[in-house]
Amino acid sequence: MNQRTPRSPHLWLREDGLAVCILDQSQLPNREVYLQLSAPGQLVEAITALRIRGAPAIGIFAGYALSVLARQIEAPEFAQFLPQLEAQATLLASARPTAVNLRWAVERMLSVARACADLDRPALLARLEQEALDIHREDMAMCRAISRHGLSLLKAGDGLLTHCNAGPLATSQYGTALGPILLGQEQGMAFRVFADETRPLLQGARLTAWELNRAGVDVTLICDSMASMVMKNGWVQACLVGCDRIAANGDAANKIGTSGVAILARHYGIPFYVLGPTSTIDLDCPTGADIPIELRDGEELRSAWYSQPMAPAGVKCYNPAFDVTDHSLISAIITDRGICYPPYTQSLRALFQEET
Amino acid sequence: MNQRTPRSPHLWLREDGLAVCILDQSQLPNREVYLQLSAPGQLVEAITALRIRGAPAIGIFAGYALSVLARQIEAPEFAQFLPQLEAQATLLASARPTAVNLRWAVERMLSVARACADLDRPALLARLEQEALDIHREDMAMCRAISRHGLSLLKAGDGLLTHCNAGPLATSQYGTALGPILLGQEQGMAFRVFADETRPLLQGARLTAWELNRAGVDVTLICDSMASMVMKNGWVQACLVGCDRIAANGDAANKIGTSGVAILARHYGIPFYVLGPTSTIDLDCPTGADIPIELRDGEELRSAWYSQPMAPAGVKCYNPAFDVTDHSLISAIITDRGICYPPYTQSLRALFQEET
Repeated sequence: MNQRTPRSPHLWLREDGLAVCILDQSQLPNREVYLQLSAPGQLVEAITALRIRGAPAIGIFAGYALSVLARQIEAPEFAQFLPQLEAQATLLASARPTAVNLRWAVERMLSVARACADLDRPALLARLEQEALDIHREDMAMCRAISRHGLSLLKAGDGLLTHCNAGPLATSQYGTALGPILLGQEQGMAFRVFADETRPLLQGARLTAWELNRAGVDVTLICDSMASMVMKNGWVQACLVGCDRIAANGDAANKIGTSGVAILARHYGIPFYVLGPTSTIDLDCPTGADIPIELRDGEELRSAWYSQPMAPAGVKCYNPAFDVTDHSLISAIITDRGICYPPYTQSLRALFQEET
Repeated sequence: MNQRTPRSPHLWLREDGLAVCILDQSQLPNREVYLQLSAPGQLVEAITALRIRGAPAIGIFAGYALSVLARQIEAPEFAQFLPQLEAQATLLASARPTAVNLRWAVERMLSVARACADLDRPALLARLEQEALDIHREDMAMCRAISRHGLSLLKAGDGLLTHCNAGPLATSQYGTALGPILLGQEQGMAFRVFADETRPLLQGARLTAWELNRAGVDVTLICDSMASMVMKNGWVQACLVGCDRIAANGDAANKIGTSGVAILARHYGIPFYVLGPTSTIDLDCPTGADIPIELRDGEELRSAWYSQPMAPAGVKCYNPAFDVTDHSLISAIITDRGICYPPYTQSLRALFQEET
């Protein structure tokens, strides 16, 4: 292959293949800190601490992480090598349970490894690195395709509302939910974007507002609780959100609060679009009720962005990181392979049938 | 009158009548700081900076503030006294535009003053102080009545969701939305309460969680964006919220985000109750569209509780302090004079007709 090595500004494989390089998203927008990660514990911690986040970006990261970790395995024989790689894969995959891309990327890397029993060590490591680079390369193509499909549903000057961050930082470039916005911006479509700040970890305030502001998009930050009023004011023509897992019936898990935005959109008669790569669709998962929801530490609610306390010490908190939006509330699911409309049980399956 | 001087733990008139004493709510839950306020600028600032907040509490505060300010007016004649008092009243009333109780209390004090042209100065000042104490005393009775009416709609063990703070701190005691919860707690009804944190100023996290925790109520703090999931989980049997102004058709202005909670409750088939004193009902205001909505500084969104920045500097923000919940989403409006059901245009008016 003579394709250029893929590289995103916030995520790439170091040239020697021995470390994954990331922009530490947990420190944005206050500090732009880049990390080079290679130790197993570091790589897992980067996911759980949200230094790297966004379902597609986590998938790319996991591919690179396994490539890096494979080089550290000192087993002389494949029979010893594979179980060690599988153990590392299990640790990585369990770092965040809701997004399917993480599991998908890890399993893809393991499949490649399992098919390489006959290769010598240098060839095996090269093959794994190649697969990780392919995941990254494919994500870039995926983002462009989603952006193009999504843009076909929007008009110049539209007011758009988004929740959490599904932009370049969450993917490789363009993003999923922010993809049509950034592609449209390049074409002078002058969208007005409302970014939900997205409590508790403020990905909307810290990342979406930061990315769109840098790209020159007209973005207005609001609290999650203001979405209803902004819609009532007539300022929103469509809602665009990303997703972490889509069940076979179209139920979509995404950042906590997404289902509320969808219910508001339905109430005000505004289209609600979910955008994500086909790797986010989990046909083995019949409905949203089958998607595991990650519960995080209540301290994320009690402490203002880990500084001043903002609730009584020890007060009980409920802190789900994701929620499930019922398929009945979703106007369309926009993937890299095209736009799916209800009934999703058929349209999502058709995406994969065309493939075979 | 031989009634006891009213006093709330967070709000009272100093014994010499020369200062209003408050617990500075803007510093909760981290510091319990009490202030004695007497200068005109201090009194207005206490309202705008939310040191005193909650529509009924602001009404009581404004009554005391005018009584205190009246004593500082050095005009020898009533003809000079009244315009000076009116000027102070205008400044106070404009401190927050949405809540009607502030304007209502200020006008009530001015009406009394205008009726006292024949009194000598000591008698005039005594009369104003008496009126302010009456407002406070009546609020205590109002809270008890609302709590009793509200409790009649709840069952022991119910899961209840509330937004912002409409508890003792927002009133004189018991509160409006929290009134039935605290009264029920005294009767061993063991509610499970979910408190929306209420961005941007976190009155739910800082005040509601604090008050309910102290009272021994089973309270769980959630982000505003989690209300949808908590309802979907089947954990909520009723929503209780306060209000800052109710229009003649039942549209209710309350803390930003309330309308979203009401739409979610409707979606999940959960009763949504608005609780407030009759002084909150503004029959001169035909619909919610006629209620002015206070817009506050975007810095409340950009800075995490005024400490670390949590959004890019200078990013555009939209920060309405209140929103309007359409009357069609409200299951009942619970007042001190009884429970109103739709159609509100009739039931709200009837509350006042019974009076005459």
